[in-house]
Formats: sequence, structure tokens, C-alpha cells
Amino acid sequence: MRNRQIFRSSGRLADGREIIYYDESPDTGRAAAKDRRPLDPFTPAAELRYDPLLGEWVALAAHRQNRTFLPPPDQCPLDPTRGGRHTEIPADDYDVVVFENRFPSLTAAPGTAPAAPAAPADPAIMRRPGAGRCEVVCFTADHDTSFADLSPRRVRTVIEAWADRSAALAARPDIAHVYPFENRGVEIGVTLQHPHGQIYGYPFVPPRIARMQEAARAHRARTGGNLFDDVVADERKAGVRVVAEGEHWVAFVPAAARWPYEVRLFPLRRVPSLPMLDDAQRDELARIHLDLLRAFDALFDTPAPYISAWHQAPVDTSGTPDADFAAHLQLFTLRRAPGKLKYLAGSESGMAAWINDIAPEDAARRLRASLPSGAAS
Amino acid sequence: MRNRQIFRSSGRLADGREIIYYDESPDTGRAAAKDRRPLDPFTPAAELRYDPLLGEWVALAAHRQNRTFLPPPDQCPLDPTRGGRHTEIPADDYDVVVFENRFPSLTAAPGTAPAAPAAPADPAIMRRPGAGRCEVVCFTADHDTSFADLSPRRVRTVIEAWADRSAALAARPDIAHVYPFENRGVEIGVTLQHPHGQIYGYPFVPPRIARMQEAARAHRARTGGNLFDDVVADERKAGVRVVAEGEHWVAFVPAAARWPYEVRLFPLRRVPSLPMLDDAQRDELARIHLDLLRAFDALFDTPAPYISAWHQAPVDTSGTPDADFAAHLQLFTLRRAPGKLKYLAGSESGMAAWINDIAPEDAARRLRASLPSGAAS
Repeated sequence: MRNRQIFRSSGRLADGREIIYYDESPDTGRAAAKDRRPLDPFTPAAELRYDPLLGEWVALAAHRQNRTFLPPPDQCPLDPTRGGRHTEIPADDYDVVVFENRFPSLTAAPGTAPAAPAAPADPAIMRRPGAGRCEVVCFTADHDTSFADLSPRRVRTVIEAWADRSAALAARPDIAHVYPFENRGVEIGVTLQHPHGQIYGYPFVPPRIARMQEAARAHRARTGGNLFDDVVADERKAGVRVVAEGEHWVAFVPAAARWPYEVRLFPLRRVPSLPMLDDAQRDELARIHLDLLRAFDALFDTPAPYISAWHQAPVDTSGTPDADFAAHLQLFTLRRAPGKLKYLAGSESGMAAWINDIAPEDAARRLRASLPSGAAS
Repeated sequence: MRNRQIFRSSGRLADGREIIYYDESPDTGRAAAKDRRPLDPFTPAAELRYDPLLGEWVALAAHRQNRTFLPPPDQCPLDPTRGGRHTEIPADDYDVVVFENRFPSLTAAPGTAPAAPAAPADPAIMRRPGAGRCEVVCFTADHDTSFADLSPRRVRTVIEAWADRSAALAARPDIAHVYPFENRGVEIGVTLQHPHGQIYGYPFVPPRIARMQEAARAHRARTGGNLFDDVVADERKAGVRVVAEGEHWVAFVPAAARWPYEVRLFPLRRVPSLPMLDDAQRDELARIHLDLLRAFDALFDTPAPYISAWHQAPVDTSGTPDADFAAHLQLFTLRRAPGKLKYLAGSESGMAAWINDIAPEDAARRLRASLPSGAAS
């Protein structure tokens, strides 16, 4: 990666929300562009509810019910502001830009909102004011492309933005876990077509991460080893489910995959969170991430509806991550065959018990065959 | 309920699968009807995979990839066998019928297959032969109706079938949890339109039930009380989320509801599993179950896509249920507004962290207003 320098600048939108530009060239002056929309002050009122039967927090965000839903292409709020049409991004161009979601699922009332505890001290207290943060990450000013079509240089900039925002949000006392992710495809409920992802700063450790922490603790107590290291070593040794392996990263279909096509991408040198990836890891990540997305898109005759989910270590109130956790990407599609989706029906949605119709070894074989020629591995 | 007598008889399909008729009148002779299809022997090969990162079992059922998918109405395999068209049900009529699923997600190799342990003794052993059982429950021979349109008498028969099958499956050493459920609506991925549900006998305790057990144990240790009893008492006292209450049952939207419209229906006298409901509870359940389904269908201008999920106590290898667990029904729809569904995207599918756009108190108010006049409560 010849040029990995990123230039960061930030400003405020008309309603007070923060906006941060990650530019690939200096002195763009974008942060100075003024948001000229007559917006009301930003005061979303999310709430947290504790479910005592499952021991989990649920976010209640009633204001989201009226969020923007599949606007026509000429009304996209994620385009730059051009020709007098004012969007969420006041600048007339951008490389990568991050801003606070106007319709957040999680949010802090100003100056309040501590992180949610694992379980309320008094189980009768089941409601708390919302806390946390929801951000939008636009990958490119080009409305009509997708992540898989970005240049490696641009993906490298996106990685910088993820890492930078992960560090900033982890440092906040009201945030316990930072989650960069992308939903792609109307099949997943995507409401805006412009290539973008999101970052959630949860005020609690999300259930999936909490269970991984528990499993890692139990494994450490039983074997003295690190669970993630041992799983990665097992998968590399087995080999049959490995999809791609570079100098710094390995991608494999998990032996117990839940989704028709699902990959876990781990750095070979374990780090708890994205800010702790070094330059060499970030450079290769940009290439291997693109290879994987392109392989997913090549599986069937239409672009893959996918969820791309960064798993990072939970952080304590000072922002220190759980050192035993291994940051990794989970990438999966709901498409199980041409024209057929995997639905989460009675077993998955009702019992959280997953049924998979595709053998993980077959999924890995098809994904390997779908990799672009000249892929990183 | 004037007539609650049920007449049970059973037979075998051409490939060896079991079929059980629950009739509302005696001597139908239905079990004697011979299945004349030239079917190959029934030898599905499901497999269990253990995910060490999450500490959960996943079922792998590759043979399901080619299951019957939305056949035309005149090809429905759940109709009775009439006019020379041979279906899954050899009899020319039925009231309620249960049979082994031809495309099961879980299945036992004959004579083998113990229940899966909570965690494998050796985490390197991540694969086991499939175990468990998948059954189909047809609620009526009438292809063109739905559960909500059944008579209370018929729902009472369905309840008998659920309870009878729950007792039979719980007694099997390879089954740790019995789960009767219904998926309704193409939005949920339903592949057959005929009114029917399913029963899964899991060889492991499904994650959702395991977490409820953990929460109940922790609550018992902390307070000496039963978690389910205390939650039901709290909701009745709060009142604002109660949707319907009869002499024996109460239905409420949980304070931390995950789905746009979601109800938990508990018997006021706690029982661990359906077979332990007495006649008075079963009679009222038939009526209140119908009231709730009709309220869901009245929410919007089209029938509700819903999942109806019976939660029962896990059982030990002798079939004895966890006495601290409370059997209850969870009923929820994915529809959040006319033409809009709740999708499980990045937060739910990636992190198992739920975001809800509808305040549970508002959902309860709308459901109460949607109840049929003369409802049980």
C-alpha cells in the first residue's frame, strides 16, 4: 500500500450532530462546509429495557419508526451536497465520511447515560435512559457503486476510519462495545442504497460478544490457552474450510457455520480491537476484505445480500479492552441458492437454535472457487 | 368446552416414518389407510456441529436444501389423499395429524444418537451424528384456512396433540427439549401454505431456553423466588402491557419486547410443560390463543406473518422436566407497519442485540384494541 496517509477533519451538522471527514489528500477544507438545512435540534430519546427472562438489554427507539425508507436515487441523503440539494454531508465531495445517525437506535442524553450494567442491581428496575452512539460511515461519494468495487486504497481509508472511531468511542465511559458493520441488500432491510456502513457504540456488551467472552474464560480456565488462537490454529490445521490465507490474515468457514455462506476473518497475530492492528495488517486486510466480498458476489447471479460484522473486545469504563478477546470479521450472506434466502424462522428466531442447509466444507469450496484471480492468498 | 375427548391412532408411511392421527370422533379407521407411494427408505443424515466460540450446537441438514418449496395448491403434500393424488397423509380426511418431517433438521440414526452435552468434553470433537426429531402438525384438512380460523374445539384438539407429542418426545433419551411452534406467512419463509405447525425434539437445550434457565437459577439464588412467577406478577401489577387475562391465563407484551408486536402467554398456575396443563387450563388456552391470533391478524390490513413458539422446560434423560421452568407461549409478528417488516440486520443477526421501534406499551394498547369482541378477557 503505497499511500496510506489519511487526513481527518471534523465539524457539526445544523442540528448539532458530529461529522468527521477522512480524506486521502490534505487541505480539502471539507469540514468548513456549512450545513444550511433548517434542522431542529437533535434530541432522539432512545431507552434501554432489561429482559429479566433472558438477562439481556433491548434498545427501544420509537423515533426510528419514521426513518427514511428507500428514497429515490435523486433524493439520497448520503450523497454530497451538490447543485443546491442539501444532504447529510454539507461538503460537495468526500472520500470517507462518518457522522452521527439522525435516527439512532442508541443515544445518550447530553451529559448523562452511563453504560448499562451486566444485570440491574434491582431486577425491578428494568428501564434506563438510552446511552451509546450510532454513526453512519459513507464509503464513497459515488452513489452507484458498492464496497466490493472500492479500490484497495479506499478500503484502507475505511479501515482507518473504523479504527479511529473505535478508539474514540471506546474511550467514552458510556460505551462498553464498539461495533462497525455493514448491511448490504434490500433482502436485509437496507433502507438506503448508497454504499455505507454503520458503527454502534453499545452501552452494554452485546449478547453474542458476552457469550464469546464466557467461552474464552472457560477455555482459559480449562486449558490455559486462548480460545480464539486455538480455534484459528485448528481451522488452519484442518484446512478444508479455509477460504483465503495471506501473510497476516486467514479466512475460514466455521465448522459450525450458522449461515449458508459465512466466513470468519482473523489476523494471525491476535489483537483485541481494530485500533491495535499495525500497518502491515491493515494493508493486507484491505485486499483480503475485497477478495472475500467479491467471492460472495460471485456465488450467485445477483449481488449477495450480506452482513459484515466486526467483532471487537468489550472495553471497561476507561476504554481498556478485554485482552483475551480476538478482533475478527464475520461476513455472511442470507442467500442459500438462486432466488432462495435463509429465513430465521421458528428454530432460529424462536429458540436461537440454528439450522444450516449447506455443509461448511462445501461452502468453503465454493467460496474458494469464487475468489477473484490473483486473490491475496 | 363440552367435548374434549380425543381419539388417537397411529401408523407408518411408506418410507417408515411414523404418523399419528388425533381425531375428534371414534373409529375413523384412518390409521389403517395405506400409504401407496413408492418411497425410498427414510434415511436423512443430519449432523450436529459445536461452535466453540459461542458454546452452542448448530444442526447441519444438507438434505433440506432440496425440500418442497411453495408447491401449487393442487400439489399440497399436507392435504388428505383424495381422488388418486397421494400426499403425506394416506387417509382421505383427518382432524389433526402429526407425522415425521420428510426433510428433518434433526434426526436420529436408528438405534444411536444420544442427546448432545452442554459442551463437548473434548472441544476438538466438534461433530456428532444428528439426533432428535422433527414432526409436522397439520391443524386441519382444509387447505384454505388458518389457525386463527379454527374452531375452539379444533384448537383444543391441537393442544392435546402438542401435549401428547411433548410427553412422548420428552421420554426419549436423545431429546433434551421439545418445541411445538408455528411459522405463518411467506415473509417468514414458510414453504407450505397449508395450515400446519411443527414440533422439534432437540438433542440439546436450545440457547434461548438455556439462558432462561440460567436467569431463573440466578434469580432463585438471589431472591429465593421463581423468576417466571415474579415477572408474571410484576406485569399483572403494572397492567399497562397486559393484552388479555382470563381465569387461567395472562398475555402481556414484555417490558423489553424484541419484536414490533410480541406477546408472552403464561398460565397463572405455573407448569413446566404442556402435558402438565389441566383440562381447565387447556380449555381456556384454546379460546385465548384464538383471541390473540385474531388480534394479530387485525393489526394491519393483511394477515400477520407470525411465529408462535412454545417454551417448555428442558428434560433430563429420563424425561423429567426442570421444575423451576414455566411453560409459556411466545407469539410475535415481524410486521412493524403496513408494508414494512422488522429485519434482523447487523445488530440482531450480527450481535444478537435487539433494537425495537415500537414501545411495548403502545403495542399492548393496539393489541387490546384489536381483540375480537367477546374475547376471553
